[in-house]
Amino acid sequence: MKIRNVKSSDFSVISPLINEWWGGRQMSDMLPKLFFVHFHDTSFIAEKDGVTVGFLVGFLSQSNSNVAYIHFVGVHPEYREHHVGKRLYNEFFNVVKKNNRNIVRAVTSPSNKVSIAYHTKMGFMIENGDKEVDGVSVFSDYDGINQDRVLFVKAID
Amino acid sequence: MKIRNVKSSDFSVISPLINEWWGGRQMSDMLPKLFFVHFHDTSFIAEKDGVTVGFLVGFLSQSNSNVAYIHFVGVHPEYREHHVGKRLYNEFFNVVKKNNRNIVRAVTSPSNKVSIAYHTKMGFMIENGDKEVDGVSVFSDYDGINQDRVLFVKAID
Repeated sequence: MKIRNVKSSDFSVISPLINEWWGGRQMSDMLPKLFFVHFHDTSFIAEKDGVTVGFLVGFLSQSNSNVAYIHFVGVHPEYREHHVGKRLYNEFFNVVKKNNRNIVRAVTSPSNKVSIAYHTKMGFMIENGDKEVDGVSVFSDYDGINQDRVLFVKAID
Repeated sequence: MKIRNVKSSDFSVISPLINEWWGGRQMSDMLPKLFFVHFHDTSFIAEKDGVTVGFLVGFLSQSNSNVAYIHFVGVHPEYREHHVGKRLYNEFFNVVKKNNRNIVRAVTSPSNKVSIAYHTKMGFMIENGDKEVDGVSVFSDYDGINQDRVLFVKAID
């Protein structure tokens, strides 16, 4: 498996894959082209035998000089047990460290149990919100009305 | 009129205004909370007599150290002739200059004639795309299938 930085032109390959990998859910609007144009050095694509098997789009927070943020991660459904995600996250953690930052944040929906389990396994802590959903602390209306979110944070050594 | 930097907590005020100001079009998904959390210093709110009359959300490109990008601008429909937009753009241009950058980019839909006229008036050039729509050069499928876009660029002295 090869991991490399994204290029602007990767958008036209990745964008159509998103709804496909998410089983037809309309998710690609969350990842407009601007993320592929302006955040090359903190965003990665995983390829295996010429097939795109995963990607991670993140950035260094402009407001908080110690923080990096993971915006969107996708893994090809047929490559879920190949440590694609782990490789992508580690690549991101490495570039975060190189930029002298040591806090990584990410956000997900309370309904995304796979994401919650995955981030917990990867060493992320769940921040204390204002209510609990299925035993997980969430922030009500975080991303708009009825858009509750789980907030993750991880310290990088 | 007072212009100030956005805070994370402004999201809950601005987000519901977006669909309202755009006449009910579902636009607020384009502006998730992350922009309010991570790009304070290049994003601004205009207030007049305690009323939010406009906002501009932008950032410094992480990949291109000479470029800044304006992601989303909104002006209260009842304050369209009050130079709210001009004040917000100028505030953004000033912070771009302070960060030693001299290229500002923005993107809009070919159907958004108001935005095209406004950016042209503000001194933005339209980049040469691969086709023309109503006499304006556009990039086909720029932001996804059938998502053509007009690309603006302006040099800041």
